[in-house]
Amino acid sequence: MIKEIAQLQIEPDQAIQFEAAVVEAIPHFRDAKGCHGLSLERSVDVPGAYMLVVRWDSVDAHMIDFRGSPAFAAWRELVGVFFTAAPQVDHVEQAIDGF
Amino acid sequence: MIKEIAQLQIEPDQAIQFEAAVVEAIPHFRDAKGCHGLSLERSVDVPGAYMLVVRWDSVDAHMIDFRGSPAFAAWRELVGVFFTAAPQVDHVEQAIDGF
Repeated sequence: MIKEIAQLQIEPDQAIQFEAAVVEAIPHFRDAKGCHGLSLERSVDVPGAYMLVVRWDSVDAHMIDFRGSPAFAAWRELVGVFFTAAPQVDHVEQAIDGF
Repeated sequence: MIKEIAQLQIEPDQAIQFEAAVVEAIPHFRDAKGCHGLSLERSVDVPGAYMLVVRWDSVDAHMIDFRGSPAFAAWRELVGVFFTAAPQVDHVEQAIDGF
């Protein structure tokens, strides 16, 4: 299991509309093969900055299966209009579960 | 409840020693006022890149109480030697718990 970490930046005054669009997009992730969960984290420090965290079976489940599917196009159709910069995407695996 | 997100970069060949140092530092967080959990995430994409995720009651619990305490000095004493760049710290709150 890995996590996709996507750093997203939008115009701060579009926050309500953006978050509503992410909620609308949830089914596209819930139905995706190898997808195990999604959360959206809002920066407290930087207005309009968000971190999308999506749990996947593997990097390929995200980068090949999902990105090659109509679900990814639907996601981008819903939220792409809000991005003021290209999303920065990384994948991480848990090294230490401290407590 | 908020999460501190710290982007850390070390020399990739120091990963084992760095992760051991983080494990050694866990008690300094576990005993900290207002601290509710810690995990260390290792980048799959970028060798030597890590994301430290620490749950706190508030930004002040991290930035004032913890950073002003001997526990923070002890943490930096253990892990600071590994950093090849200044940690990038952000604080986030959950906007959407998708599934």
